[in-house]
Amino acid sequence: MEKGSLLYEGKAKKVYETNDENIVWIEYKDSATAFNGEKKASIDGKGRLNNEITSLLFSKLKELGIDSHFISKISETEQLVKKVAIIPLETVVRNVSAGSFAKRLGVEEGKPLTRTIVEFYYKDDDLGDPLLTEDHIEILQLASKEEVEIIKEKALKVNSVLTEFFKELGIRLVDFKLEFGKDQSGAILLADEISPDTCRLWDIATNEKLDKDVFRRDLGSLTDAYENILSRLGGQKVCTK
Amino acid sequence: MEKGSLLYEGKAKKVYETNDENIVWIEYKDSATAFNGEKKASIDGKGRLNNEITSLLFSKLKELGIDSHFISKISETEQLVKKVAIIPLETVVRNVSAGSFAKRLGVEEGKPLTRTIVEFYYKDDDLGDPLLTEDHIEILQLASKEEVEIIKEKALKVNSVLTEFFKELGIRLVDFKLEFGKDQSGAILLADEISPDTCRLWDIATNEKLDKDVFRRDLGSLTDAYENILSRLGGQKVCTK
Ligand SMILES: Nc1ncnc2c1ncn2[C@@H]1O[C@H](COP(=O)(O)OP(=O)(O)O)[C@@H](O)[C@H]1O
Ligand SMILES: Nc1ncnc2c1ncn2[C@@H]1O[C@H](COP(=O)(O)OP(=O)(O)O)[C@@H](O)[C@H]1O
Ligand SMILES: [Mg+2]
Ligand SMILES: [Mg+2]
Repeated sequence: MEKGSLLYEGKAKKVYETNDENIVWIEYKDSATAFNGEKKASIDGKGRLNNEITSLLFSKLKELGIDSHFISKISETEQLVKKVAIIPLETVVRNVSAGSFAKRLGVEEGKPLTRTIVEFYYKDDDLGDPLLTEDHIEILQLASKEEVEIIKEKALKVNSVLTEFFKELGIRLVDFKLEFGKDQSGAILLADEISPDTCRLWDIATNEKLDKDVFRRDLGSLTDAYENILSRLGGQKVCTK
Repeated sequence: MEKGSLLYEGKAKKVYETNDENIVWIEYKDSATAFNGEKKASIDGKGRLNNEITSLLFSKLKELGIDSHFISKISETEQLVKKVAIIPLETVVRNVSAGSFAKRLGVEEGKPLTRTIVEFYYKDDDLGDPLLTEDHIEILQLASKEEVEIIKEKALKVNSVLTEFFKELGIRLVDFKLEFGKDQSGAILLADEISPDTCRLWDIATNEKLDKDVFRRDLGSLTDAYENILSRLGGQKVCTK
């Protein structure tokens, strides 16, 4: 596989063309951003950790019957994935009150929700990723009603599987964000990443935060938290010296 | 009917008990507020105008088969209404992009929506009335799924009727906010007010704004705009000298 020209550089990853038009080459960057880009830092090792963790999680999902864009990890910070047209929705699954949900709605952080909910946000940095209702999604023609149903179903399936999987590792899956895209056949495929950047992961015993909130809220070493997750997932420790 | 003690003072109205436990006495105030109370003013005649307009509109709705809490207008600024337990939702119906919808979602103000939509906001001043999804309403136990369906249906019916009615008066009903409550039998009843404070009303010919945006955006005399609406509705002009 040959790496082609840069298609897109986002806040966390670079996306390159390859010699196969259906495959893109993703490079995980060391940059950390929060609050719609207001808070920024470069953190050595973050790109590697998220690439490793995402690769392990997409492989695990595959084993458990859930497809994604993931093809293979090709280096510490790179992977090959199926190219999709990203649907501009951030699909958020919440099991426990936290973050913007807790703040916006006045529900104490850490309180389990009476049932899991799926939310959609408009993936648009200029608008600050606003919350959407399903009517908004239809009106803005971001996805059809049928596509929204498929996405919700897939998101809830990912949630069931990952909740169980993380539980066995002593981790509570509080909430997470997914992105979906359409492949060349028009089918909806899970894409982007699943990492401590996009999930809230709390130690079940201590409630210690092992995710991007460590960065957002200045709670200590982000890479220590992400290494903790990676080692529980069975990933190899890399000598970073 | 006797006016009892003050039950609640809101931003636009005072609510008093009466000697009938199922009836409250509402007094429309001259205060204008916007942006969650950040912008404030006292505007002579506003209470009278909103009381007159709301009374006319609730009477019109009644004629056309839509019930509300409205019983009767008892003075220029006062009315009697059925007492309800207000459901803490602001139900917004939108026909045309405007206001927070336009801004949040990047849809040019004035653009008709491909279809009418209903949105719900959490009626909570401390939280700044955040937008809710139907899942949020369920999780927060603000209303049941069945109640939400009834509210949506009623709101859309009010919209059909008022859109036609205003059109005949040369006014475009852009969007509006309703509140619903439960009466002593538990039935859901349209309550609160329907006035230029709670509707966006644009002159069909000139697009002139004849609603609270005149105050929000400093577009001229609020009472002139509200008088314009009232006179088109057939209300009597009051000598304010
Ligand atoms: N399989 C894929 N095909 C094409 N684009 C993808 C795929 N998976 C993820 N992307 C997109 O890659 C871009 C880079 O990722 P990221 O740095 O996280 O961007 P952002 O700053 O938008 O969050 C994002 O727009 C993301 O939606
Ligand atoms: N029929 C009713 N019975 C009881 N309360 C009502 C009724 N209609 C409206 N209300 C409530 O009266 C209060 C006063 O109105 P308003 O001044 O507009 O308040 P707010 O500042 O909350 O918008 C509001 O809480 C409103 O929901
Ligand atoms: Mg991203
Ligand atoms: Mg009010």
